[in-house]
Amino acid sequence: MKFNASKPALMHAINAVQKAVSPRSPLPVLTGILFEVTGNRLYLTGSDTELTIQCNIEVETETEGAIVLPIRYISDLVRSLPDIPIQFNSIPGSTSVIITYGTSQVSIHGYEPEQYPRLPSINRGTGIQVPQDELKEMLRQVLFAVSNDETRPVFTGVLMQVDGKQFRLVATDTYRLAMKNYQLEEEIEQPVRAIIPGKTLGEVARLTGNTEEKISIILEENHAFFSTADLKIASRLIAGQYPPYEQVIPREFVTRTRVTTREIMDATERASLLARDGYPVVKFTLQENSCVVSVQTQAGWIREEISGLVEGEPLEIWFNARYMSESLRALNSDELCLELTGPLSAAVLRPAGDDSYLSLLLPAKPPKD
Amino acid sequence: MKFNASKPALMHAINAVQKAVSPRSPLPVLTGILFEVTGNRLYLTGSDTELTIQCNIEVETETEGAIVLPIRYISDLVRSLPDIPIQFNSIPGSTSVIITYGTSQVSIHGYEPEQYPRLPSINRGTGIQVPQDELKEMLRQVLFAVSNDETRPVFTGVLMQVDGKQFRLVATDTYRLAMKNYQLEEEIEQPVRAIIPGKTLGEVARLTGNTEEKISIILEENHAFFSTADLKIASRLIAGQYPPYEQVIPREFVTRTRVTTREIMDATERASLLARDGYPVVKFTLQENSCVVSVQTQAGWIREEISGLVEGEPLEIWFNARYMSESLRALNSDELCLELTGPLSAAVLRPAGDDSYLSLLLPAKPPKD
Repeated sequence: MKFNASKPALMHAINAVQKAVSPRSPLPVLTGILFEVTGNRLYLTGSDTELTIQCNIEVETETEGAIVLPIRYISDLVRSLPDIPIQFNSIPGSTSVIITYGTSQVSIHGYEPEQYPRLPSINRGTGIQVPQDELKEMLRQVLFAVSNDETRPVFTGVLMQVDGKQFRLVATDTYRLAMKNYQLEEEIEQPVRAIIPGKTLGEVARLTGNTEEKISIILEENHAFFSTADLKIASRLIAGQYPPYEQVIPREFVTRTRVTTREIMDATERASLLARDGYPVVKFTLQENSCVVSVQTQAGWIREEISGLVEGEPLEIWFNARYMSESLRALNSDELCLELTGPLSAAVLRPAGDDSYLSLLLPAKPPKD
Repeated sequence: MKFNASKPALMHAINAVQKAVSPRSPLPVLTGILFEVTGNRLYLTGSDTELTIQCNIEVETETEGAIVLPIRYISDLVRSLPDIPIQFNSIPGSTSVIITYGTSQVSIHGYEPEQYPRLPSINRGTGIQVPQDELKEMLRQVLFAVSNDETRPVFTGVLMQVDGKQFRLVATDTYRLAMKNYQLEEEIEQPVRAIIPGKTLGEVARLTGNTEEKISIILEENHAFFSTADLKIASRLIAGQYPPYEQVIPREFVTRTRVTTREIMDATERASLLARDGYPVVKFTLQENSCVVSVQTQAGWIREEISGLVEGEPLEIWFNARYMSESLRALNSDELCLELTGPLSAAVLRPAGDDSYLSLLLPAKPPKD
């Protein structure tokens, strides 16, 4: 394997794949990045076997070939190189590479490429096309609600559901739920559902660009595949049944208000500062024409009145401050509708004038005096 | 106490003093910032009794007065406020303040200002004036060599020495030493020496601006004082004798080279990447017309040849990679002179054409094969 590449291109590819590499894998070859040169492309692959990321860049090839290089060294080393043409050279059969930059050289020991596991290959399955910027924002809007509790695996994933032209993402940790719909251009014949690990989708969100260029998503029985021109992400799916989430979304409300998202977000964040050493809840009082955000703790008190049209009954309700902040940040809307079903039952947040998204939040118990 | 202030001014003052506050002090009042309003100035003070920082800003005063507010809440709270006029109001005798911003209010419990320790007052001592930007850079050039070892207190400080027109800073952790001289405009009658805690000088460096405006330094028997128009820093001195550092600085060398600082710095940092999992030393080989930076470890090898005029005998010497990188970064010069006295004795680094600064570095033992 012998090729010349630019430092920015190499860094781009290493940054793309390195989050999939597990530097402490018991299988040494998986602590490295697979470098493969075919034609004038260099394919870099990182994998922890659950999640695999492959990125390809253009290089000037002298000899095709492959090698696995340890992430522990290759990533920081390439980052530290000067921005001049960089040559990689590995003698066939050797497990070292010599990297030449100007008159200097560095050599790193690696592993044989034959030991590296292969990417799962795409057989069949349902494929859809979504603009990258849309998918990135959809993921941001639901990923905060994914659970970290590994003992209940389905909640650590996002339900991805395609039915006709409707593409839907749902995430919940049982305290809050976020749901986003997107209208596809083309109809899918067979409805399909899959639970994709939150970690995988975090990487998909990180790696998709702020561009309208499309990303292709293919859901198979055990794997999901995401691909753009220079990127392929493959992930195992989470086995199990996603809970019947639709029945927990309230259809009626007793109190409803429409307020400026920024105002309620800032008030919640300030109030949470006073609550952070005790029971971290914030009180929302819906009264005629305003929503009052308040907290009283040993540290002091805060009161902010946010004007907004309130329909229905006056109501006092407490929310976990961090959960409320995260739900508000995910809204992506200047104004929001807050729909309450009672002081002890689920609240629904919606971006005003946009029915493609909602998030649901269970209230917290009021603090004891 | 009642005053109106802008958020940026308040944040500036809180940021200035907060590093001196010890949030876990056993004396509760020291976990807060002292707010004192006199005339149209607000004086903020933070102190851990060793180090005291006071910053003053202009405010619109309605009533003079004072209160101590806990750093745990006041800092993040002010940071989270909107950028609109902010009013502080505390009823005399009360230990709470009400902060009003627009139609919203927050109240924080504090402490009585009478409990707060006073700043040490300036009696006599030697005063000098140095441009802030010069002092900031002088401190950067020596602080890296300060020791963290609290069992030998004098090495955790910087020796500050004034003699006639010469102002000198020296720091050493016994493995390396940095010395910087500065020519004062006015002559000081009585020579003076003091050992100032590295932590204090880190704060002085952080708080001095990139401006030619002068900072005044007064050294007393037990305290050092730094002051500008809006800032006062007071620090206890470190007791003890600073070691006779001048006699360890070599006066002769066997090998000397002049090289580009950037080249040798980059080569050292790349070489250190390969050495980081084992014995972290880098080899420097001075030969005819070049300095070769190299490392050979289990991870691989690196070799960079940096051209430069070499005088004297060829020589191989090893240095701790981090110590060398830190010494190189402190030089502040495009080119440097590296003077060696032998493979096992101290090396001297000087900025080319600038005799106001030098740093000294002991070599490391060569790695075992």
